[in-house]
Amino acid sequence: MEQKKRTEIAELGQFGLIDRLTGKCTYRDASTLKGVGDDAAVIVPPQGETMLCTTDTFYEGVDFDLTYFPLKHLGYKVVTAGISDILAMNALPSQITVSLGVSSKLPVEALDDLYEGIAFACREQEVELVGGDTRASMTGLVLSVTALGHAKKEAVAYRSGAGQNDLICITGNLGAAYMGLQLLERERRVLNDVENPQPKFDGYEYLLEKYLKPRPRTDIVVTLGEEQIRPTSMIDLTDGLASDLLQLCKASSCGARIYLERIPLARQTTELADEMHIDPVVAALHGGEDYELLFTVPLALQEQIMRLGLVDVIGHIVPATKGRYLVTPDGGEIELKAQGFH
Amino acid sequence: MEQKKRTEIAELGQFGLIDRLTGKCTYRDASTLKGVGDDAAVIVPPQGETMLCTTDTFYEGVDFDLTYFPLKHLGYKVVTAGISDILAMNALPSQITVSLGVSSKLPVEALDDLYEGIAFACREQEVELVGGDTRASMTGLVLSVTALGHAKKEAVAYRSGAGQNDLICITGNLGAAYMGLQLLERERRVLNDVENPQPKFDGYEYLLEKYLKPRPRTDIVVTLGEEQIRPTSMIDLTDGLASDLLQLCKASSCGARIYLERIPLARQTTELADEMHIDPVVAALHGGEDYELLFTVPLALQEQIMRLGLVDVIGHIVPATKGRYLVTPDGGEIELKAQGFH
Repeated sequence: MEQKKRTEIAELGQFGLIDRLTGKCTYRDASTLKGVGDDAAVIVPPQGETMLCTTDTFYEGVDFDLTYFPLKHLGYKVVTAGISDILAMNALPSQITVSLGVSSKLPVEALDDLYEGIAFACREQEVELVGGDTRASMTGLVLSVTALGHAKKEAVAYRSGAGQNDLICITGNLGAAYMGLQLLERERRVLNDVENPQPKFDGYEYLLEKYLKPRPRTDIVVTLGEEQIRPTSMIDLTDGLASDLLQLCKASSCGARIYLERIPLARQTTELADEMHIDPVVAALHGGEDYELLFTVPLALQEQIMRLGLVDVIGHIVPATKGRYLVTPDGGEIELKAQGFH
Repeated sequence: MEQKKRTEIAELGQFGLIDRLTGKCTYRDASTLKGVGDDAAVIVPPQGETMLCTTDTFYEGVDFDLTYFPLKHLGYKVVTAGISDILAMNALPSQITVSLGVSSKLPVEALDDLYEGIAFACREQEVELVGGDTRASMTGLVLSVTALGHAKKEAVAYRSGAGQNDLICITGNLGAAYMGLQLLERERRVLNDVENPQPKFDGYEYLLEKYLKPRPRTDIVVTLGEEQIRPTSMIDLTDGLASDLLQLCKASSCGARIYLERIPLARQTTELADEMHIDPVVAALHGGEDYELLFTVPLALQEQIMRLGLVDVIGHIVPATKGRYLVTPDGGEIELKAQGFH
């Protein structure tokens, strides 16, 4: 039987390791003057555009569980998370840095997998890895991702710009990543004491993909640009629809009405939710990690935005005094709260 | 007896905590269009300039020991570390983001101290805190700092530009931070079992300051700009003179000669080194964390650079075939090696 090769991190040294890992990331962006290999990356911002910057850190045991999270997918997902914050400003991502804290228990081959995922996401999303370091951490894996992007000043969409009667739009569907996580957790519990566990995921592949390998919605920002639609406000859906919409309403000093039956749910989401006795709307409102975009546009753009076929209009902005409510099909109103259910 | 107030992180919640901490950082940079409070920061790069970006992460138990590292100083030092990488490109820092992983064991008051240090450094260095998050970590404190800066394209100094006969210049003095760390470690060992420890630091305050609260050398980059001196290459001294000079030589495909008696050492560094039977030159070569700048200038600038009174010329660049050596006063040559002694 062939044994899988195991290289210790110490064999390569810090610099050798960084060269090996960053070498996998071959996408180059035109705006990068100097990428990996100096004290800092040097970027030439596109003429007259603003630069955007955001940082997120992910901790093993808090944000991901390596017992069921393949490292390659993890690499892909942290890039998505970083990029998604740039997209949420209606801007396009161009560079990332990845700072890695690793226990010496992990072999180099595990980090290879992680960086294959990062490299794949960078190629797919046309984002250049321009820096980062790899250090020892005392315990689990820590990944810190900084994403840079650019946009014309007048195109940038803030959380704070939603206006009266604006339409509340969302991309994709919600709650699928949360249900994917529930599925993984269930299989782990069931198979905890089994020697050769064969988890059953048949029919729920989409949910796993949404949790393990969510795609950032670059396509939406590109399309909005082509259509010359400038959202009045925007945020990405990472904490769940309720929490993220409340953040947007708070920043815009407004209220909102969203309609329960308009919240887009994937078939697999409702199926697994039924099977597990979870309300799929609760998964959408509080599950999080959807990496879809939530934005508002003026009412006058209703036809144009619907014609795109890329977004669902789930409600509209109202004065702050009217509060923030979910409207049920029978006309009942449930106040939106931020606390998650997990 | 008055009890020190202890607020649990959970009492404030994630958003309340971030508001409280980032609220301390009041410096605003003219190039920031949007700082803390949205999905990403928005920066307007100064007309025609390049943007620089770098990320560093610091782990409790690896990079710092909270038993003797005051949190306020730690906050200051991580800002210095971030800024220093921007300065090392001959560029000026303008923004930082700080991403924090904290154990729930830490009270909010401890994070207040940390952010007072961050805020102090930001005010002093005129750098705006424009983002970051605060998350639970399973174990120790993790701090990830991204620094942004800007410079004219033609002013940026890379590691790779050193030319034949260029002078090797360094700012400040070396090895002091390493000796400061040795002092702290010694006092901790001595006082480990003492009930009310009173560590003895008299006469070595400078060493403690260099380790606990190193100042970034923004003054040097400003002065070089005013004097219209463009270094041919540059790096900041974080891993020790030997390792950092070797990095610069490798990137520039050149060799170097540096002279032992020209390496600047502070009086306190040599005094404590004598007392602890450490060779102070070893501290300078391999100690690290000096956060001084190492750079090269053409030989023709010798007089101008000496006149500044801010740097020491410790050697010069030679062809790669001549290797990289430390020359002793008796004319002996010791090959420079990268490995640290700690």
